[in-house]
Amino acid sequence: MPDFIPADSVGLVSPTVLSIDQPIRLECGRELPHYQLIYETYGMLNQAKSNAILICHALSGDHHAAGFHSMEDKKPGWWDSAIGPGKAIDTTKFFVVSLNNLGGCKGSTGPTSINPETNQLYGPDFPIVTVSDWVKSQTVLADHLGISQWAAVVGGSLGGMQALQWAISYPDRLRHVLLIATAPKLSAQNIAFNEVARTAIKSDPDFHDGYYAQHNTLPRQGLGLARMLGHITYLSDVAMGEKFGRELRTGNLNYDYGVDFQVESYLRYQSSSFVERFDANTYLLMTKALDYFDPAQKCDGDLAKTVAPIQANALVMSFTSDWRFSPERSHEIVNALLSNGNNVTYAEIDAHQGHDAFLMPIPRYLEIMTSYMQRVAQECTEQ
Amino acid sequence: MPDFIPADSVGLVSPTVLSIDQPIRLECGRELPHYQLIYETYGMLNQAKSNAILICHALSGDHHAAGFHSMEDKKPGWWDSAIGPGKAIDTTKFFVVSLNNLGGCKGSTGPTSINPETNQLYGPDFPIVTVSDWVKSQTVLADHLGISQWAAVVGGSLGGMQALQWAISYPDRLRHVLLIATAPKLSAQNIAFNEVARTAIKSDPDFHDGYYAQHNTLPRQGLGLARMLGHITYLSDVAMGEKFGRELRTGNLNYDYGVDFQVESYLRYQSSSFVERFDANTYLLMTKALDYFDPAQKCDGDLAKTVAPIQANALVMSFTSDWRFSPERSHEIVNALLSNGNNVTYAEIDAHQGHDAFLMPIPRYLEIMTSYMQRVAQECTEQ
Repeated sequence: MPDFIPADSVGLVSPTVLSIDQPIRLECGRELPHYQLIYETYGMLNQAKSNAILICHALSGDHHAAGFHSMEDKKPGWWDSAIGPGKAIDTTKFFVVSLNNLGGCKGSTGPTSINPETNQLYGPDFPIVTVSDWVKSQTVLADHLGISQWAAVVGGSLGGMQALQWAISYPDRLRHVLLIATAPKLSAQNIAFNEVARTAIKSDPDFHDGYYAQHNTLPRQGLGLARMLGHITYLSDVAMGEKFGRELRTGNLNYDYGVDFQVESYLRYQSSSFVERFDANTYLLMTKALDYFDPAQKCDGDLAKTVAPIQANALVMSFTSDWRFSPERSHEIVNALLSNGNNVTYAEIDAHQGHDAFLMPIPRYLEIMTSYMQRVAQECTEQ
Repeated sequence: MPDFIPADSVGLVSPTVLSIDQPIRLECGRELPHYQLIYETYGMLNQAKSNAILICHALSGDHHAAGFHSMEDKKPGWWDSAIGPGKAIDTTKFFVVSLNNLGGCKGSTGPTSINPETNQLYGPDFPIVTVSDWVKSQTVLADHLGISQWAAVVGGSLGGMQALQWAISYPDRLRHVLLIATAPKLSAQNIAFNEVARTAIKSDPDFHDGYYAQHNTLPRQGLGLARMLGHITYLSDVAMGEKFGRELRTGNLNYDYGVDFQVESYLRYQSSSFVERFDANTYLLMTKALDYFDPAQKCDGDLAKTVAPIQANALVMSFTSDWRFSPERSHEIVNALLSNGNNVTYAEIDAHQGHDAFLMPIPRYLEIMTSYMQRVAQECTEQ
């Protein structure tokens, strides 16, 4: 727990729930008659409503991006290093909005919500939601908040895909887009890792075709395996090497099939803590949203043509050791934007932390974001 | 099935079983009172017994490295591209020996063998066998065949680790060592992937703590998951991209949790075919042998000091897109050998196939091996 709230924290925050009765038609063809979105805001919306920033979360993220829910919280929100007074996304200048996506398990309508048609949990019957669907639902939240145009839409990883989709689908509703450690679509290898994760979850006998809640159980082994595997792909070989190397847990090899190395122990811990706080059906849904994201598909794979509608200025950032969404994937986006004459800034950050680097307080990374966002803030006051 | 046996094939071959009654003391401290090794040989041992080549297999390999067991065989042995008359390891010049390792499941004593003490299958009670143990058991086979010194010991991946251990442990018993797509020890990331594979197997309810045979079942899901994951790490991102890309199986997204992409379908097929032909306890054992391999550990991590005893000349080869055992891992070996003034040839093959490249008929790779082995053959006739 924090002994005190740090001066550069947004402090104690609490989420708001927006209930939406306007049905949303999803890409899969199904419709949700009504749904909830849970969100947090940090900072104040200015009179011109020109200083709003939307934060889009990644696979296991949620609306709680900064600050603390109580003095008992052990950790702040997931992007507290970037959001707060005086930080890169400066809450003394911006009104920051962060929501849990539709299909999530942290308060927005998703598999763990009650299906009004059956009065049972949705579970596996919750429709598959895509990045485009998320962006569509986020416009509803923007409308509710009176924000006709975001100063910036910001996201890392799967969050970056949402930010990119915003810029493509609603070009006049954002002035800047920050695309961090992301990709214009998954590679076959990315999809393959997701398929292993899904297979692990679905083959857990406690999964019960997704109706585990009705069986009063949880697919702990399967979801845990998915998380272990995810962790390996979020870290770099170098980062794992520096963190664990070949260090033994007890100092000796055991010559059995239990834990010998520290890295095994770490993965087991990560896996068991995750299953207590994340829903397996949501995990499946998030991986499918990742797999399905491919905005260029409608333009026969031509990414330049796909991003042609974009009016926003872009800051694209990647990390040298990220092998999940490598710098080359960011280059694809940058090159597509450049070929349309878009205003794009690109920074490739030298970092050994792998994909997870985008969540970390890496000075060079945050300095560049700070500098970019200061210009964005300047524009807001000029509006 | 082959319509005919190709002219450059070793042709129809059959394995031999060697029963050894001399107990073997293993690194774990346990002893096997007697054990069998199954092996194949190709080519003829010359009078001087100077032309013998030992082939060491990788994780899921076995003794059947070249040729066909019958005219009905669909595929030849696992390294038929490199072994045969006129091939890199030329069976008109060399006497090639290939065995299934102790702890394997293809005929050498292992978890699927009967434990003479209990008259039950060993199953999970089979001791953990290390790379050093394998090399020790291979010296017994060499003695049996009357081979006091190998012309070369050859291995890729885990096979390369055995070859390296041979050169360290029995420096006067080999003149050349071929270390292909290997590493002097696993990285934390390598161990982490193995741990995910083991967790998948062990958490399969059909695993029954390794006593699945007694329960008349197989841990299909767990072993299948391990294989799916293995496959991803054997291929490069580029190779998977070229092979599958984002191609859809039915042409459409299904918006459910079944198979959408070809790569998913491929992984499922690989997984289901593997579980029919490989033993889960052996898989666990092989991954532990990989994890435990670290010859430099006895020299406080100093690899140069570790390889100081080596007398053999070395050919080290790596593949540019191999991210399981990257070229940098081969550089570690090369640098250690060079620092001792060893005669070492290094070739880094430009190949997009990832780790699996070492099993493939890549012209540049086989040309370099051919050229090297021709010199080795020349020496044999001079002996």
